[in-house]
Amino acid sequence: MQSLVDLRTRIAAGTLDPAGAIALAQDAIAAREPGLGALVHVASDPAVPRDGPLAGIAIGLKDIIDTADIPTEMGSAIYAGWRPKADAAIVARLRSLGAVPLAKTVTCPFASRDPSATVNPHDPGHTPGGSSSGSAAAVAAGLVPLALGTQTAGSVIRPAAFCGVAAIKPSFRLLPTVGVKTFSWALDTLGLFGAGIRDVAHALALLADRPAIDLAPGGIAAPRIGLVLQDFAGPADPDAVAALSRAARAAEAAGAAVTDLILPAQLAEAWAVQATVQAFEARQALAWEYAHHRDALGPGLRAELDGAQALTASDYDAARRTAHRARRVLKDVFSEFDALLTFSAPGRAPAGLAGTGDPRFNRLWTLMGVPCVNLPVPGDGLPLGVQIIARFGDDGQALAVARMIEGALEG
Amino acid sequence: MQSLVDLRTRIAAGTLDPAGAIALAQDAIAAREPGLGALVHVASDPAVPRDGPLAGIAIGLKDIIDTADIPTEMGSAIYAGWRPKADAAIVARLRSLGAVPLAKTVTCPFASRDPSATVNPHDPGHTPGGSSSGSAAAVAAGLVPLALGTQTAGSVIRPAAFCGVAAIKPSFRLLPTVGVKTFSWALDTLGLFGAGIRDVAHALALLADRPAIDLAPGGIAAPRIGLVLQDFAGPADPDAVAALSRAARAAEAAGAAVTDLILPAQLAEAWAVQATVQAFEARQALAWEYAHHRDALGPGLRAELDGAQALTASDYDAARRTAHRARRVLKDVFSEFDALLTFSAPGRAPAGLAGTGDPRFNRLWTLMGVPCVNLPVPGDGLPLGVQIIARFGDDGQALAVARMIEGALEG
Repeated sequence: MQSLVDLRTRIAAGTLDPAGAIALAQDAIAAREPGLGALVHVASDPAVPRDGPLAGIAIGLKDIIDTADIPTEMGSAIYAGWRPKADAAIVARLRSLGAVPLAKTVTCPFASRDPSATVNPHDPGHTPGGSSSGSAAAVAAGLVPLALGTQTAGSVIRPAAFCGVAAIKPSFRLLPTVGVKTFSWALDTLGLFGAGIRDVAHALALLADRPAIDLAPGGIAAPRIGLVLQDFAGPADPDAVAALSRAARAAEAAGAAVTDLILPAQLAEAWAVQATVQAFEARQALAWEYAHHRDALGPGLRAELDGAQALTASDYDAARRTAHRARRVLKDVFSEFDALLTFSAPGRAPAGLAGTGDPRFNRLWTLMGVPCVNLPVPGDGLPLGVQIIARFGDDGQALAVARMIEGALEG
Repeated sequence: MQSLVDLRTRIAAGTLDPAGAIALAQDAIAAREPGLGALVHVASDPAVPRDGPLAGIAIGLKDIIDTADIPTEMGSAIYAGWRPKADAAIVARLRSLGAVPLAKTVTCPFASRDPSATVNPHDPGHTPGGSSSGSAAAVAAGLVPLALGTQTAGSVIRPAAFCGVAAIKPSFRLLPTVGVKTFSWALDTLGLFGAGIRDVAHALALLADRPAIDLAPGGIAAPRIGLVLQDFAGPADPDAVAALSRAARAAEAAGAAVTDLILPAQLAEAWAVQATVQAFEARQALAWEYAHHRDALGPGLRAELDGAQALTASDYDAARRTAHRARRVLKDVFSEFDALLTFSAPGRAPAGLAGTGDPRFNRLWTLMGVPCVNLPVPGDGLPLGVQIIARFGDDGQALAVARMIEGALEG
């Protein structure tokens, strides 16, 4: 994989220039994209800024993120060749930092759970997850050092776990979603994929213009970590349980206090209503597509929207109230814990490309709006990841704890 | 003016058919649009559904609301001829109810405070207000029975007051903003303009699919109304003070208990930071336009975005915290009052087309996300309006109180 921080260090030292760094990505794309299917469009001959804190960094953008100079097709034939007028806010921000939006990455249709054609870089017989399938795979295969995806249920953390890359789904609305195709406005969150924790931490600090998010030199001392199994979401695979346990022991070895934590019942209740919030808003957000192109939607999305037609405003209001209650309860949980440690996904990437895996260990946290980090746990076979979660607005804390565990797992 | 409820009553009675009702709007446009400048594009030969609770209702849509079949130009040469791919969520909803999106209405550039060319239907030498200038003027001039606008500071309630039409800026996120050009995602709110309170109440209940919002047959009994001068926003004109007083007396005559209310200091503090939230988000939302077309922006918007470049994430966070505190305090205020009554604007529509008036009596309420209704106060000269405000989520209450005062002023 290409490390954003390493590339920037070489550029700062003068041993690599921005154009050279972009050429590395272009070469990697030429060598590895065939057979991977992570990219939809690659910018030909893009301008490469010489200056800026992300100069020389090639970016992969999930193809529901608007770009004025590259088509934006939403993973759907309905939007074939579609050219938005303007760059999304986050793309404008990337450009202002000197980064080069180099490629649009494959997305499941409209960021739904219907599969895309991208394969898992670790084994083409397995899904990379979704819906940010191309972004996770592109970073995992070393095509680009940084890719952006979105998460409404589990579309960032799950594919990151399946592809073995670091990722963060930041606090809700930390990054602007203007110009990103909406699925659910209360849930949709931009996320970042990178080679390691320090890469996504550095990128997020720059994108959000909040230097405090970046890792501090000294690391974090003795965090209190709650180990959460999310029983309400069903059991995880034995492999995932073992990886979670390994991460917990590594955290303890590095000085963390790790305690088993059963979440209060209000959080299980919120988990159960995430799909209601999502479907009720998706029905409105995708009303034009449903009215005019229902047959061209993927079968999963069509079924979700079919089912959503029966939801009422009271169903939605009740779900929102349940979520609101749970957010208050979760705030109290974070008075006793600096971070939570839990599964990123039920297990390794499932075989086949007919599905993208299950977001059941991600739904609650997206609804809560709290920052979630995927940390790959080294080992044999297809990747496994664990999820580190911090309180709303404390993205830096989630990243610091994740980096501590990452270091301990490496050591 | 065309009354939506009257048109629907005639259609239900069989004395008018939907095509005939749309023809009324087309005829009115042909007769009155020249010299008014309220419309950008009119759909030629639109399909007219025969069924649906809004069949026969011609709609004016502020030209920042995406329509797939009519250009959407944002009031700016930058978007000349721009054709979005999809209808905005609210447009899809209107069509599903049988309404006919007949015209795009003039907007100030990107819904900013830079003026548009629309004139006030009551006197072409005066502004209609903004930024939903065309929507307010189109309803006031009788072109269409229902028009949609948006409010980020005071862009619905102010032009409604200046043009003498009923309007509601509903609770934040009651109506979906997907497909509406973003200025500030924490503030932007779709609003409705109609001939009278019952018209906007009926339309909002249908659009939100919440029948309880519509006026109940019996009206409302003895509401407790707080009379608010918003001294923190500066003084209103004597005319506006007299209109507010008249509305208060009418409310009392109809059985309301009206009490003078000085708002707690936290609300004045929130009023003062609304512009910070707006500008910080606008800098991101309009980053592409600012980077590529700064010279083509209006002078007011350009200056706002120039100034916003210096805002920091901490400025924004502090403003959001101030707003959050004020929302809690306002909730307590609404335990003692069923509605607040205050100015919709500092006075009558200012002379000339060089400005659009001042949103200073609207900023706080948009930031609070609470429902606001403009009620015209009958009288000589250019229109005056008063603003009726209810607690978050209680749009029906704001409308019921407004209807009560409307009836008392008529009587």
